[in-house]
Amino acid sequence: MADWKTYQDKHQERFLEELKALLRIPSVSSDSRHHQDMLSCAEAVKQSLLEAGLTTAEIYPTAGHPVVFGEKRVDPAKPTVLVYGHYDVQPVDPLELWHTPPFEPTVKNGMIFARGSADDKGQFFMHVKALEIMNQAGPLPCNIKFIIEGEEEIGSPSLGAFISSHKELLKADVILISDTSMISLENPSIEIGVRGLAYIQVEVTGPNRDLHSGVYGGAVANPITMLAQMIASCHDENNHITIPGFYDDVLESSDADRKKMAAAPFEEQEYMKDLGVQSLWGEKGYSTIERTGIRPTLELNGIWGGFQGEGSKTVLPSKASAKISARLVPNQTSGKITGLLLNYFKKIAHPGVTVKAFELHGGEPYMTPMDSLAYTAAEKAIEASFGKKPIPQRGGGSIPICSLLEKELGIKIVFMGFGLDSDNLHSPNEKFNLANFYKGIETIPYFHRFFAEGWTKG
Amino acid sequence: MADWKTYQDKHQERFLEELKALLRIPSVSSDSRHHQDMLSCAEAVKQSLLEAGLTTAEIYPTAGHPVVFGEKRVDPAKPTVLVYGHYDVQPVDPLELWHTPPFEPTVKNGMIFARGSADDKGQFFMHVKALEIMNQAGPLPCNIKFIIEGEEEIGSPSLGAFISSHKELLKADVILISDTSMISLENPSIEIGVRGLAYIQVEVTGPNRDLHSGVYGGAVANPITMLAQMIASCHDENNHITIPGFYDDVLESSDADRKKMAAAPFEEQEYMKDLGVQSLWGEKGYSTIERTGIRPTLELNGIWGGFQGEGSKTVLPSKASAKISARLVPNQTSGKITGLLLNYFKKIAHPGVTVKAFELHGGEPYMTPMDSLAYTAAEKAIEASFGKKPIPQRGGGSIPICSLLEKELGIKIVFMGFGLDSDNLHSPNEKFNLANFYKGIETIPYFHRFFAEGWTKG
Repeated sequence: MADWKTYQDKHQERFLEELKALLRIPSVSSDSRHHQDMLSCAEAVKQSLLEAGLTTAEIYPTAGHPVVFGEKRVDPAKPTVLVYGHYDVQPVDPLELWHTPPFEPTVKNGMIFARGSADDKGQFFMHVKALEIMNQAGPLPCNIKFIIEGEEEIGSPSLGAFISSHKELLKADVILISDTSMISLENPSIEIGVRGLAYIQVEVTGPNRDLHSGVYGGAVANPITMLAQMIASCHDENNHITIPGFYDDVLESSDADRKKMAAAPFEEQEYMKDLGVQSLWGEKGYSTIERTGIRPTLELNGIWGGFQGEGSKTVLPSKASAKISARLVPNQTSGKITGLLLNYFKKIAHPGVTVKAFELHGGEPYMTPMDSLAYTAAEKAIEASFGKKPIPQRGGGSIPICSLLEKELGIKIVFMGFGLDSDNLHSPNEKFNLANFYKGIETIPYFHRFFAEGWTKG
Repeated sequence: MADWKTYQDKHQERFLEELKALLRIPSVSSDSRHHQDMLSCAEAVKQSLLEAGLTTAEIYPTAGHPVVFGEKRVDPAKPTVLVYGHYDVQPVDPLELWHTPPFEPTVKNGMIFARGSADDKGQFFMHVKALEIMNQAGPLPCNIKFIIEGEEEIGSPSLGAFISSHKELLKADVILISDTSMISLENPSIEIGVRGLAYIQVEVTGPNRDLHSGVYGGAVANPITMLAQMIASCHDENNHITIPGFYDDVLESSDADRKKMAAAPFEEQEYMKDLGVQSLWGEKGYSTIERTGIRPTLELNGIWGGFQGEGSKTVLPSKASAKISARLVPNQTSGKITGLLLNYFKKIAHPGVTVKAFELHGGEPYMTPMDSLAYTAAEKAIEASFGKKPIPQRGGGSIPICSLLEKELGIKIVFMGFGLDSDNLHSPNEKFNLANFYKGIETIPYFHRFFAEGWTKG
């Protein structure tokens, strides 16, 4: 048992109450109506860091939502761990599908339901509480810095400028991020990669006004039909993406790597049952784990046009729009794929419509090297607290800032995620298992200890 | 010049003010929030009929919105004309595209802008004012009945029961409807047919909740993508509709009929310029006039699913929906085509999604015989007031109640429409040219005169 388990158990109710307070702040970064909530949340994060034992913590304004940075330096000879997280959350709609209000955290069956519970407030807050635990136990095993941003869910538009203008402040030896998931408490895993993102919006305009579908139908290109045809053309009958050049830079996984992946526990029937579907879908020739890990994808995130109200309206609409995003894998780049997508939709449009397409956000794929001191420390930490060596796994999500962090700071990232795929990230009824929350808090101090020990040994 | 032109000219300002009062009532039949407005509008219609000279006018409750019926019987030996119209209007959204408020009628450049100005308040009101004119001039040339319903824009669900339970009340020798358009004041035309309608809604459900598009994207059928593929599959590369059996009952037009149609004035460049499009679209092998007249069509009226707000949300949505309608020509039937559509969408769905499809509304196509006394009377009436014989034309819109009226009452329908295709029916900025409004009022008494004269001659 971890040395700090007694302290942790004694204070675990308070830890939960503190998390709840953070979750009550509706810090939706994409919605300008939540501007004041973003500032309140940044302030709450700063306070929590100071209370947990950092020497300094400050709110740094940016062109967008502020960044919270804090640190505690204990010894220049010891290594420095930079913890990254984000205090912003996804929008909550469709609100009517939530069983409990998204910003009134509710504990039920050992899970805490709230927007941001797993992504990412509940996860970065494990690091805050692990800091408190380490701090009360004596000198920290290493120097610790925290950077908690407020724009992850909108593609971190302001973080690049902040990082490049604060390189000295952020100087560290490894970046530690808990914003990913693991397979289960029984099968702990470490994500060794996240996918990149290229997210665009397409607006198709036909006639200059909504038309009567009887008077003009059949003679004028219908923007919804044209958009549907364009969307349908993006996949072939094997669900390969047809956009020219899309796969050009994809790093194919070796047969050996694919074999290792196939060994990870995966119950297809359970997976389908959880999702309520009768059949899966995806690129021919790849397994589900591969489709969500090592392969790029193209997903429709939203679509709208014409009459959406009650009953019927016989209109041939002027416009139809869609939000479309691709997940990218090494060595695809967001800029190139975004360009391919934008050009594709403009190029294939019927001459009876015009297409406006623009980028909404993007991010590069990222891979963690498994032969590093930091990865080994994470592996050992999980083994110490879970009693089982973690399975390395490629994650499906994206943390757009990863490649930038690495490039600007010259250091590697390790992902220690304690969420589950079933946490309803970005969906109604987002939740975080309290068992995972507490296990995460227990695991994190091991990482710092093993990383510092390995560093000293050199 | 018509005998009644002096009276008409003297009162035309008042006629316009009375029309405006009617247009101020937001009688949107599809929206339950307008229930009270529907009742107010029915009352206003009833009053206008009594003031114009009918002996009786009553509001008849139905399972939905009420029907207004009134009549003036002058002589059992004279024929009876039943005027049909509707006081309900289409919804107004997207409201932001209106240049003036839809229910504050605004006269600009000789046109009156308001929802319902052409469809159909402005048009049935021409008959009300024509009645006033005939009434002040002496005995009516024939018996006149009015049936003005409140559910045309939602498929007249209650009118069938009303008609079959009031056959004696509605007994007449011809039905006269002004709810269609003409080519122009310079090229008057009579619609000799309207298309039928089969209008359905399709709801595609994939996973049981909105998912994170990174975690699940690529492995689970995306309802938007699946819906887009289904929509795209409805037309082939020649824009023929691919739904099996769709064209089976289509009455093909003869080469002679198509030649006549091709002689109607049509300026493709003007048409495209008015719509703001660079190119037209439609079924290969047919002209624009044919595509909107003698051919059936399949149009997307609305689509929605996933995230439609500001910015980006990386969601793989649980549901996507569309509103889809077909326009039908003789001898297609709404019931059969609705069945084909519903089955098609259910049948072609990927097994990873479920499809719920249901009918929203329908109506049969209708053709007016050109060799009838009533058609000849309409032709002569237009010639008398316009100085030019009207061009017979197949209309693209639908008046679902036509075939029911004919079947239940055993009489034919004549369409005398005075609107223009450019009146923005069902669109923002609906308008009605005042010149057409006044010309319609001038023409209608001729119809009654010529029809009564022809009837007497036998």
